[in-house]
Amino acid sequence: SSADSLVSRFCPEKTDLKDYALPNASWCPDMLNLYQEFLEKTKTDGWVKLPSFKSNRDHIQGLKLPFGLAVASDKSDWRIFTRCIQEEGQGYEYVIFFHPSKKKSICLFQPGPYLEGPPGFAHGGSLAALMDETFSKTAYLAGEGLFTVSLNIRFKNLIPVGSVAILNVDVEKIEDQKLYMSCIAQSRDQQTVYAKSSGVFLQLQLEEESSQ
Amino acid sequence: SSADSLVSRFCPEKTDLKDYALPNASWCPDMLNLYQEFLEKTKTDGWVKLPSFKSNRDHIQGLKLPFGLAVASDKSDWRIFTRCIQEEGQGYEYVIFFHPSKKKSICLFQPGPYLEGPPGFAHGGSLAALMDETFSKTAYLAGEGLFTVSLNIRFKNLIPVGSVAILNVDVEKIEDQKLYMSCIAQSRDQQTVYAKSSGVFLQLQLEEESSQ
Repeated sequence: SSADSLVSRFCPEKTDLKDYALPNASWCPDMLNLYQEFLEKTKTDGWVKLPSFKSNRDHIQGLKLPFGLAVASDKSDWRIFTRCIQEEGQGYEYVIFFHPSKKKSICLFQPGPYLEGPPGFAHGGSLAALMDETFSKTAYLAGEGLFTVSLNIRFKNLIPVGSVAILNVDVEKIEDQKLYMSCIAQSRDQQTVYAKSSGVFLQLQLEEESSQ
Repeated sequence: SSADSLVSRFCPEKTDLKDYALPNASWCPDMLNLYQEFLEKTKTDGWVKLPSFKSNRDHIQGLKLPFGLAVASDKSDWRIFTRCIQEEGQGYEYVIFFHPSKKKSICLFQPGPYLEGPPGFAHGGSLAALMDETFSKTAYLAGEGLFTVSLNIRFKNLIPVGSVAILNVDVEKIEDQKLYMSCIAQSRDQQTVYAKSSGVFLQLQLEEESSQ
């Protein structure tokens, strides 16, 4: 199916890599319920649950970076920023669902105490980073979008640590090799808007590495 | 001096709290040299080196949050997002210098391998978060700016993990209870601009807690 081929461009087909976008003991009931709700939609509604590995290097295995960017292969413990904290529930808990034909994503986000800004609330920068990351994965899967050109955020309300925010991402248009996306982050009951944002990503096709 | 009173509004006068904005073994020569350069300027040029504790709670001890926001005092290990990673050199290494009369800040930033986005480079979101944090501290000290209203970033070039980016922040104006700030992030030799951004923060005065 197209969902399968899409995910295979995004990660190795068979893998032992740990998927961090799976429920764990730190997830609150709201987070678990929403996860189950969207997991149901993957069966009938065309949604795809995206795996989330420790490093972007695992997501783009076998693909060549543009501009001759070489992937340094030293022994550093490379981590994608939004998976930098390994302790369950302390940092980022999130999972992204993507809808290929609608060019939409949903990200469920439960910030932990390591993401604090104002006492008791998520740092604005932690939401900014997750918006950028959700835009980035959406842009890549919806149209080879690779690099953030711009990110504009208006903050409306603070997200309490331990609660759940839902990020709704839409690809608005693809034009002149750029993807234009929008995001609204809100509470589950949609009564509280946390932030609205827009992002522009540059399209650049990754090539397969030659086997040599 | 005004620098002293300023810092005392920002952190306890005498403290055993660890200051994370001090050189450690992971800092590269560029980072160390720039740090020394700005430290010299604190002696003659009116610059102030800001301490950086694990939690914002430590910075605003004895002050009351607006809107009746209560500081949850459970046993969570609360960390400000940009100090979420404790291992030296793996995550954020940064130090902020502030100039009260010029209403300027400089932030020296060395991203580690846990801040990765594209292989070998800092995640755009990690820079966005540090811009927000540098804006936030500058806004607070330059004029009681407390909450991010908006954050707009244009990305120009990727920051290699392990290198140093310098964030130059200016308060452009203070109007209608809002602080308007700009930031340019660039390499030490100023030959590479990594990103430009603007931020708007809302002014809200923190009151001293009554001793009762």
